Amino acid sequence: MESVLLKQINSPKDLRKLSKAQLNALAAELREFIIDVVSTKEGHLGASLGVTELTIALHYYFNTPYDQLIWDVGHQAYGHKILTGRRDVFETNRKLNGLSGFPKRSESEYDTFGVGHSSTSISAALGMAIASQLKGETEKRHIAVIGDASIASGMAFEGLNHAGVTKANLWVILNDNAMGIDPSVGALKEYLLKAKVGKRPKQDNVIEALNFHYAGPVDGHNFEALLHAFAELEQVEGPKFLHVITKKGKGLQKAEEDQVRYHAPGKFDKITGEILKSTETNLPPKYQDVFGLTLLELAEKNEKIIGITPAMPTGSSLKYMMQKFPERALDVGIAEQHAVTLSAGMATQGMLVFCAIYSTFLQRAYDQMIHDVALQNLPVIFCIDRAGLVGEDGATHHGVFDIAYLRCIPNLIIASPSNVIDLRNLLYTASLGIKNPIAIRYPRGRGDHTDWQKEFKKIPLGKSKYLLNGSQVAVIGVGSCVIDAKKAIAQTEDSSKYSLIDLMFIKPLDVEFLKEVLRTYQHVIIVEDGSKKGGVGEEIAQLALQEKFKGKVILLGIPDQFMHHGTTEELKDLAGISSGAILKVLKGLE
Amino acid sequence: MESVLLKQINSPKDLRKLSKAQLNALAAELREFIIDVVSTKEGHLGASLGVTELTIALHYYFNTPYDQLIWDVGHQAYGHKILTGRRDVFETNRKLNGLSGFPKRSESEYDTFGVGHSSTSISAALGMAIASQLKGETEKRHIAVIGDASIASGMAFEGLNHAGVTKANLWVILNDNAMGIDPSVGALKEYLLKAKVGKRPKQDNVIEALNFHYAGPVDGHNFEALLHAFAELEQVEGPKFLHVITKKGKGLQKAEEDQVRYHAPGKFDKITGEILKSTETNLPPKYQDVFGLTLLELAEKNEKIIGITPAMPTGSSLKYMMQKFPERALDVGIAEQHAVTLSAGMATQGMLVFCAIYSTFLQRAYDQMIHDVALQNLPVIFCIDRAGLVGEDGATHHGVFDIAYLRCIPNLIIASPSNVIDLRNLLYTASLGIKNPIAIRYPRGRGDHTDWQKEFKKIPLGKSKYLLNGSQVAVIGVGSCVIDAKKAIAQTEDSSKYSLIDLMFIKPLDVEFLKEVLRTYQHVIIVEDGSKKGGVGEEIAQLALQEKFKGKVILLGIPDQFMHHGTTEELKDLAGISSGAILKVLKGLE
Repeated sequence: MESVLLKQINSPKDLRKLSKAQLNALAAELREFIIDVVSTKEGHLGASLGVTELTIALHYYFNTPYDQLIWDVGHQAYGHKILTGRRDVFETNRKLNGLSGFPKRSESEYDTFGVGHSSTSISAALGMAIASQLKGETEKRHIAVIGDASIASGMAFEGLNHAGVTKANLWVILNDNAMGIDPSVGALKEYLLKAKVGKRPKQDNVIEALNFHYAGPVDGHNFEALLHAFAELEQVEGPKFLHVITKKGKGLQKAEEDQVRYHAPGKFDKITGEILKSTETNLPPKYQDVFGLTLLELAEKNEKIIGITPAMPTGSSLKYMMQKFPERALDVGIAEQHAVTLSAGMATQGMLVFCAIYSTFLQRAYDQMIHDVALQNLPVIFCIDRAGLVGEDGATHHGVFDIAYLRCIPNLIIASPSNVIDLRNLLYTASLGIKNPIAIRYPRGRGDHTDWQKEFKKIPLGKSKYLLNGSQVAVIGVGSCVIDAKKAIAQTEDSSKYSLIDLMFIKPLDVEFLKEVLRTYQHVIIVEDGSKKGGVGEEIAQLALQEKFKGKVILLGIPDQFMHHGTTEELKDLAGISSGAILKVLKGLE
Repeated sequence: MESVLLKQINSPKDLRKLSKAQLNALAAELREFIIDVVSTKEGHLGASLGVTELTIALHYYFNTPYDQLIWDVGHQAYGHKILTGRRDVFETNRKLNGLSGFPKRSESEYDTFGVGHSSTSISAALGMAIASQLKGETEKRHIAVIGDASIASGMAFEGLNHAGVTKANLWVILNDNAMGIDPSVGALKEYLLKAKVGKRPKQDNVIEALNFHYAGPVDGHNFEALLHAFAELEQVEGPKFLHVITKKGKGLQKAEEDQVRYHAPGKFDKITGEILKSTETNLPPKYQDVFGLTLLELAEKNEKIIGITPAMPTGSSLKYMMQKFPERALDVGIAEQHAVTLSAGMATQGMLVFCAIYSTFLQRAYDQMIHDVALQNLPVIFCIDRAGLVGEDGATHHGVFDIAYLRCIPNLIIASPSNVIDLRNLLYTASLGIKNPIAIRYPRGRGDHTDWQKEFKKIPLGKSKYLLNGSQVAVIGVGSCVIDAKKAIAQTEDSSKYSLIDLMFIKPLDVEFLKEVLRTYQHVIIVEDGSKKGGVGEEIAQLALQEKFKGKVILLGIPDQFMHHGTTEELKDLAGISSGAILKVLKGLE
């Protein structure tokens, strides 16, 4: 199909020149454009296909950017980007220095609020709407588009609960496709399902109980229905709510049929939808799978083992345990706060709870970790995936603060394995029962060992270890940085000068071991995949000062700035923690 | 009244020996006992008076501690403590080494889950209930008692939303008194009000929409009604919900009439309820009042200024601005996550938002601070009260992690004024408009200056300053520690040896100034009222190492353990940051 209409649209102003009758044709073109680009450049697919009509209808009806449109999470905003002046650069999506995969304020005036994490849109839109009211711009409309998985998160409820007692010009559009990344869960989801099939009582529904005017459900793939619903709602003063039903992956059959896989399918055939398989064979496993499969293995032997994930069964690979032990492996929805305190409650009853959360999302449950877990010294096992730089998802998703924000929590043990076998053995060690809560952090992506399902070995808590013994310089690596440090050492002219140490435990620090290191080497380099400010490097530097260390102590880590998107390798290079960057530092010491 | 019944009750077993007819008499005795102790020993009053009958009814009906009772927040648990074996030590409440003011697992088997922060009880109880189910103890009952302010928090919603799709033996008792510490707010509160006055439609209420069996409302001061409601609900399988209406402060007229003031009234006359006024005159103002009154003063001149508090209008003193500018000063309820992202949304529209949150509660909005504020570099002004040790509220409430968890956030400025005049001028400086978000942290309690309402002066961002010039040792103080360091120096034999530096800015650090300090003095001592691990002391130590500092760098701060309750002075002493402790360190250097 030739993109006849789409190529005329350089901003929503152009879109508004089209007749209603042309919108379906435009939707077909926009869908094809998204499929074209994502099939070769990769990215998030299903969510944007699902809201193609809704996106067009919103920009057609509302006077964006004066009216303010806020996309929750932002996976679904590709169509929005393409229609708001970014069509011709869309193929740079998620590439270094290219477009962000999420709405971003610095990128366009149409991106009114930066997103990435879920359930922020109602609060942000309400803030804008209250500000507009105070400025006398009461006719200005503020539209939050939020999915059914995201609206079930506590933060969204807080936003609704506040909005309901205001007169704000706030529109909440519920994009209900019964899916997050994985299928939605929870009582609210079941309630919405009743609404969809017409079983919802017309009066006093949940949303109306919160003082919103509720409308819908309407077919989100039908322009007439959408535009009519907008016009009807326009008559209502104050906060209003439109329930829109869409299908994730709409328009690409395979994506409609397997919505989880086509959330972000990688490269695929744009005609058949067939996902292109990697030609590489015998790849080492992903860290997440080592977690998921090892947990299953341990759970088979110990019925006290429980797995908890807040809405990431696939991403965390808890799905393996969920399939085999559905009673003991639970997806609680986008509810990190609840997930952690639920884990704490279970731990009081003697359960061995493995709570799997991405590093960046654990920021949502920071208080619960301190107040409900660590303060009571409950031995919850936090399995923190996506620690360090995560690549293309960018600034909202990097797991670069966890070392700094966890290190100050008393009672907590923090481990950062440098390879999948140590991860496996840490999980095993934790399953034997330890007295403290433990956080095991590991990176996105694949490990280094293909032959990883070895016999379990107990790992001594709080012990660091030598991987290479050299004569002059000690390189201390944290987590995934150990691999890069090893590569760097291998590229030096005389690698026998360098010792390589796998720190393994960020807390408790192996102080006696480190003191010995400080007595032995001329210089010490510490490489960590987290923020230098507050990082473990600072603590080791303080130890060096106390020990009156005479040489150089060089700290490598994430600098004091937000890292944006690109491949993980590109970003490591920018941060100065790639093998190349480490090599440069080693050479500088010669 | 002689405590005839109460003194027989050493555990709920004794309570269950009473006849129903005796319960009212017991309630009168229990209320009097609480009033007796709290009137002289201080503590939280209104909440426990409000649930006296409910507490007795719960322990009378349920088989505690086998059945598990979880109090949300825990201000209301004094009666619970007195009935569960702690009557004779209750006068040690909130004192060093005495009882905690909150339920605490290490204190009693009846305290099934430690609390302090709000809205955790449903998640914790559900975790216990699911564990019981897995262990085959399906008859075991798990009862969360939660107030109407706490249940409106997002975390509680997440717990309800999950519970609704389980078959857990979970009881949620809503203690509805229309109050948190301040009056409750939000749409859910308005909804509950309708239920109370009988206007709620019987079918499909909010709670039932989440798959709970709803019962009530019942009179929470009527034993017959309560016990009957429990027995009725017993017949229902799965999660159940009982709406109980109580009056905060019940039984003490003044406490019923002024519920905010009698939440924690200090010493009062146990007969008349009259609050005893301090005999001291001309006391310096509280930090919170300097914040609240200065903000009001600034808001009078600048209509872009907005104040936000999550449920702490009185505690934060935002109430002054709320009284004068109700449109621009908002209490959003116990909703820290929403409060921060709402502030971010307002900031995108050019508003100058002062978001007032206690240090310990900001842990609840950590992700929002990173993801919604700092990443977008929105100039929200965080006014972080109760930073450092807070005294009698203890481990759940100390603000000792904020330096560590904030320091790693890019774009954020962090200031820690050492006196109320600097606080006032920082607020003024922020109101002039700065490019970055800023966190201004200040302690609980009173400042040092009585004459504080001086002309505003702009404070240069990122600059530290000398308060005393000495010859040999530099003492760098952070926030409230500056005062203690000054006292310590005054007590040395030769105070001319000691320089005193007010760090003022934790971020950006005044690196050039600090380098000059390192070049000038023999030894450097850093005193901070936050965790040493991850503290700013570590960063300064690293700078000293880099500058090849030859002397000693001594870091004082909160050690790597949870600090419990006592007076702030006692706790500072235990942590090694009191003036006495600093003095010892200074003497050790001689």
